[in-house]
Amino acid sequence: MRVLVTGAAGFLGQRLMAALLEGRPDRAAVAGVIGADLAAPPAQERRVEARAGTITDPGFVASLFERHVDIVYHLAAVVSGEAEADFDRGMQVNVDGTRALLEACRRLARPPRFVFASTIAVFGGPLPPLVPDDLSPRPQSSYGAEKVIGEVLVAEYSRRGFVDGIAVRLPTVAVRPGTPNAALSSFVSGIVREPLAGIDAVCPVPLDMRLWISSPDVATENLARAGFISGRLLGSHRIVNLPGLTVTAGQMLDALARIGGAAARARVRCEPDPRVTRIVGSWADTLDVSRALRLGFHVDSDVDAVVHQFVRSTLSPPQRSPSG
Amino acid sequence: MRVLVTGAAGFLGQRLMAALLEGRPDRAAVAGVIGADLAAPPAQERRVEARAGTITDPGFVASLFERHVDIVYHLAAVVSGEAEADFDRGMQVNVDGTRALLEACRRLARPPRFVFASTIAVFGGPLPPLVPDDLSPRPQSSYGAEKVIGEVLVAEYSRRGFVDGIAVRLPTVAVRPGTPNAALSSFVSGIVREPLAGIDAVCPVPLDMRLWISSPDVATENLARAGFISGRLLGSHRIVNLPGLTVTAGQMLDALARIGGAAARARVRCEPDPRVTRIVGSWADTLDVSRALRLGFHVDSDVDAVVHQFVRSTLSPPQRSPSG
Repeated sequence: MRVLVTGAAGFLGQRLMAALLEGRPDRAAVAGVIGADLAAPPAQERRVEARAGTITDPGFVASLFERHVDIVYHLAAVVSGEAEADFDRGMQVNVDGTRALLEACRRLARPPRFVFASTIAVFGGPLPPLVPDDLSPRPQSSYGAEKVIGEVLVAEYSRRGFVDGIAVRLPTVAVRPGTPNAALSSFVSGIVREPLAGIDAVCPVPLDMRLWISSPDVATENLARAGFISGRLLGSHRIVNLPGLTVTAGQMLDALARIGGAAARARVRCEPDPRVTRIVGSWADTLDVSRALRLGFHVDSDVDAVVHQFVRSTLSPPQRSPSG
Repeated sequence: MRVLVTGAAGFLGQRLMAALLEGRPDRAAVAGVIGADLAAPPAQERRVEARAGTITDPGFVASLFERHVDIVYHLAAVVSGEAEADFDRGMQVNVDGTRALLEACRRLARPPRFVFASTIAVFGGPLPPLVPDDLSPRPQSSYGAEKVIGEVLVAEYSRRGFVDGIAVRLPTVAVRPGTPNAALSSFVSGIVREPLAGIDAVCPVPLDMRLWISSPDVATENLARAGFISGRLLGSHRIVNLPGLTVTAGQMLDALARIGGAAARARVRCEPDPRVTRIVGSWADTLDVSRALRLGFHVDSDVDAVVHQFVRSTLSPPQRSPSG
């Protein structure tokens, strides 16, 4: 099994590569991983081939497919804040880059599994209390619109037999380590991570705004799993809403207080930002994920477990895969 | 008001231009129409500027926008049969061509109204008896997938303020005059048109297959109307399921017998074609169009009226606009 991971230098990309290389008894062994990103990801071990370049460069894309690839995990993307600020760059990377990868897959001798990291940001407009599996996306951000187009491409390239694709809509992944990024949902990690490190933080949405989140461990395992689910189980329906937890920003701060103490909680002040509130508030917050659960995807137990996972990860080396 | 019509040499394109030039008291007057198509459409009168070229040629697209355009009606497309047979050409015209037009609009001094002719072929997969306004498209044809991408682009370019867009999902338009085309739904017109002209015809789907149709007069009027609906009425929801009639192939043949006589009906034999049955059968056949009706779009009264309209049109010069 040879695997290509785009966005491999990112937080999820690095974790995904580690999980794939660690393997699982119920999955085919991964002999090698090509990790591609704008800057070459750190080569974790001899089975990782690190490549630096952009998927908007046809030559770079072609170079990734010089040998056969069995699974493509396409994580590379311009995130929501940047796609909103620079429309053209978002379209080039998120739409044209995705299409270029699909075209390269189409030219392979056998159609590879193509895992497309999509997002709840595809949703928007009036949403029912429980978002059904077949609700039409009405994205209210460029990032969301570009991801919808990616989903349609993955489904169509699958129907034509060019790839064996699956688009998984990831919840907001929190709590991420490190520093804030240009995602509009970056604060969801920040309001827990910064106070635990003794740094003041701002919550830019009302405390009762509901979020749909997944811990890094569960998100990583679900992504990995998407590479190995039988195409027969997916049938002609190639887009899956991944499981998540519905929590309000206030509930995250309550968990912070329980686990990190009152002093940590006191470091977060609430200053709603209309732009962040409007766009993140347009995303789905409670989805019917019965199909995803039937397909074997995992879910976090509760918000305290999510915060505990982050605390553990800052005390010990990064976990290679979830315990579940 | 200056208007651009792509696909202007087509059946709907020519009718639309005539309707726009005829005008209506409740609409701003159209001073000139640029009619663009692969072959220049016949210039109907001095206000029509006919242009020959392809929307996949950036120079041609730029030439269409040398002066300001107030409304773009984007009808040009590779139809379903051809898009299925030639995937690359379908993507180039239906996706890249649409994006090129939207980009040209973005560079205008004022965002024009952009009317995108979409289709019920965006739907597919398991469908409820009544398709709600917010059901997710799951196209089962390349044409349908390409039209979904066009819709998402129109909605997103509208949200960004680059155009004031509306995507209207047209039913199958029948009964069309002339000869069969490469649309997989071409038979819906053929099984009425050919027998009335004394020509044998084949119905390639089971007689109980339900279709969602609109007469040429109603489809033309609804398209024209889409150019003039206030953007405020549309809000952030830029995709509209146009009204249609639900009829089975058998009910169309019953109407043919009532209006054209038993001899005409006897000219049609039923020979289901699996490919046509699978793809056309995947399209939505009964849609909730309450929103479209609130927006003032029209609907045919019944299948006999649709067949009568065709009979009238073959006896007299083409009608310039619907009577309603």
